[in-house]
Amino acid sequence: MNIKIMKSIFSDNQNLANENRVYFNENNLSVINVLASPGAGKTSTIMELIKCFSSYNIGVIEGDIASSIDAEKISKMGVKSVEINTDGACHLNAISILEATKNLSISNGIVFIENIGNLVCPSEFDLGEKLKLLIASVPEGDDKPYKYISIFQKADIIALNKWDLESVVEFDYAYFERGVKAINPKAEIIKISCKNKLGLEYLANSIKEYTKNTYESK
Amino acid sequence: MNIKIMKSIFSDNQNLANENRVYFNENNLSVINVLASPGAGKTSTIMELIKCFSSYNIGVIEGDIASSIDAEKISKMGVKSVEINTDGACHLNAISILEATKNLSISNGIVFIENIGNLVCPSEFDLGEKLKLLIASVPEGDDKPYKYISIFQKADIIALNKWDLESVVEFDYAYFERGVKAINPKAEIIKISCKNKLGLEYLANSIKEYTKNTYESK
Repeated sequence: MNIKIMKSIFSDNQNLANENRVYFNENNLSVINVLASPGAGKTSTIMELIKCFSSYNIGVIEGDIASSIDAEKISKMGVKSVEINTDGACHLNAISILEATKNLSISNGIVFIENIGNLVCPSEFDLGEKLKLLIASVPEGDDKPYKYISIFQKADIIALNKWDLESVVEFDYAYFERGVKAINPKAEIIKISCKNKLGLEYLANSIKEYTKNTYESK
Repeated sequence: MNIKIMKSIFSDNQNLANENRVYFNENNLSVINVLASPGAGKTSTIMELIKCFSSYNIGVIEGDIASSIDAEKISKMGVKSVEINTDGACHLNAISILEATKNLSISNGIVFIENIGNLVCPSEFDLGEKLKLLIASVPEGDDKPYKYISIFQKADIIALNKWDLESVVEFDYAYFERGVKAINPKAEIIKISCKNKLGLEYLANSIKEYTKNTYESK
């Protein structure tokens, strides 16, 4: 019974995600779903990427279970943002993204979606995005690709943030990379540090390359 | 409709959690639900606490969505452990805990439950535990109590791990503490470092004090 309910939720969401892709295509929007655990640096990375994409029309959808701390940071940059407060729910879904994107009222540009800080549930919900950007971080440890398989498997680009801490904490990069490659050989892993401004232009260029492709219906 | 389903799930779980408390009481078990985001240091903290409680009967229930990395670490210590592999699900529930505790077949001691690495969903599921131990960590940032309100609100003791990194990353302890006290004035915050063996005996003593109380039906 439970399984049936979940199947229905997932398939409804999938249909809506496909509708989102039509809207994003019509409005020439590259939509980037930013996923990470709490405190890995989603907001910081989005803020750095906004600087790299300064010549683009940019909008940000801020998902939060409570508080508007992140949305306020984005607003202070003078960037259009819409907040989705899930009131406790653990992921964003396709229907709320369509509404939020329409509220942003931008076209010919980039929309960043900051998903809920959670390495489990958001991986199951297609939002219609062109790119899933997963942000891992060095202090979380090198074993995360082995433990949170679904989200590492579905990521298109993996940014490994807080690389500045690599000399301070024990982090076996080769082990981390092996874990990713075993389940997702296509995903590029890019070392970044928002603190030391490392790797961010490179990440922005990889995002540009990736988002040249058209949306794929799923 | 959705809300009704969720209410039913929560109330069924609550009844089962109360049944768990009866079993834990009869077997004189102090059950500790260890909650944290991915990479905050749940396994490391449990391993350090096991050393502090070396004269006790100890069992560990290892919750994981995939992999048995953590369960293997515990087994290597010669401690009884049972693994619950949720196959993608984002939290542990009361029914699986009763089964796992029976499988451990210990009495007059302590059972640590390592919950799924997730600051959102596990907070909603009472497992019948005597104590919710939330492990936050310095590199996650000082704003987490403001963003993940439910889990910070429900924690009985908050261990702030990776305190050794406090001088390396920007972490405003006063801001963190204010966030906790605003929503959960009773919870004790204890700074620890599993790397530098800081605060762990103190944490173990606080756990001993807390678990002297009897189980409260909810």
